[in-house]
Amino acid sequence: MDRIPILRIGDLLLVTVQVDMHDRLALALQDDLCLAICSRDTRGVLIDISALDVVDSFIGRVLADTSAMASILNAQVVVVGMRPAVAITLVELGMTLPHVTMALNVERGMDFLRNHNRSLDAPSESAGTLVPA
Amino acid sequence: MDRIPILRIGDLLLVTVQVDMHDRLALALQDDLCLAICSRDTRGVLIDISALDVVDSFIGRVLADTSAMASILNAQVVVVGMRPAVAITLVELGMTLPHVTMALNVERGMDFLRNHNRSLDAPSESAGTLVPA
Repeated sequence: MDRIPILRIGDLLLVTVQVDMHDRLALALQDDLCLAICSRDTRGVLIDISALDVVDSFIGRVLADTSAMASILNAQVVVVGMRPAVAITLVELGMTLPHVTMALNVERGMDFLRNHNRSLDAPSESAGTLVPA
Repeated sequence: MDRIPILRIGDLLLVTVQVDMHDRLALALQDDLCLAICSRDTRGVLIDISALDVVDSFIGRVLADTSAMASILNAQVVVVGMRPAVAITLVELGMTLPHVTMALNVERGMDFLRNHNRSLDAPSESAGTLVPA
């Protein structure tokens, strides 16, 4: 496989990683995601890794970098479905992914992104309020 | 890969087929989908095949059978993202998939399922209307 498909659902993108990603495939996914974010209004990206048995330090770094890139492009990345064994391995490798948002599954990740976007769209409470005399 | 992951989004299931399915994998997906439909309230199933270059007659039949099984289990299957070349090959193989619902992409498929479910939920117009005297 040369490309991992990116699905669009409204203003969200969904990527299901099903194969153990070799390095070039991971970088291709990163490029494709950045292009997809810019090509149409995109507020969030869900990356489902529930099928992955192994996430090595390179892939961990790609996930963290992708999240940072999307953030600069004004989209929030949520990585969903990480297996417990993968989390254990990542921490043992010294990768705690502090700036990557995680969620249990696609449903929870989607709820998070919807609430996140709603809170961004809502006008700030402090703006325009009148201070009582 | 031994299993294709099935993602749940509310009362919909989403399957992204990314590898050329050998026969056992296709039958395993069929079993898993039927189990997933029964395990929780499921109204629709989206099967994305945009990554597939080839759909042979066996896989075509599995798609048709899965759609029929889901229908008996009260869920609507929509196959999305079929490439033009795949459609051409299927018809040349003599498979027109008359009872399988198709959609251009996941977004359109999801819209279709939402409208479909809404129309099922809405009370029939003829029921309970008063005939003017």
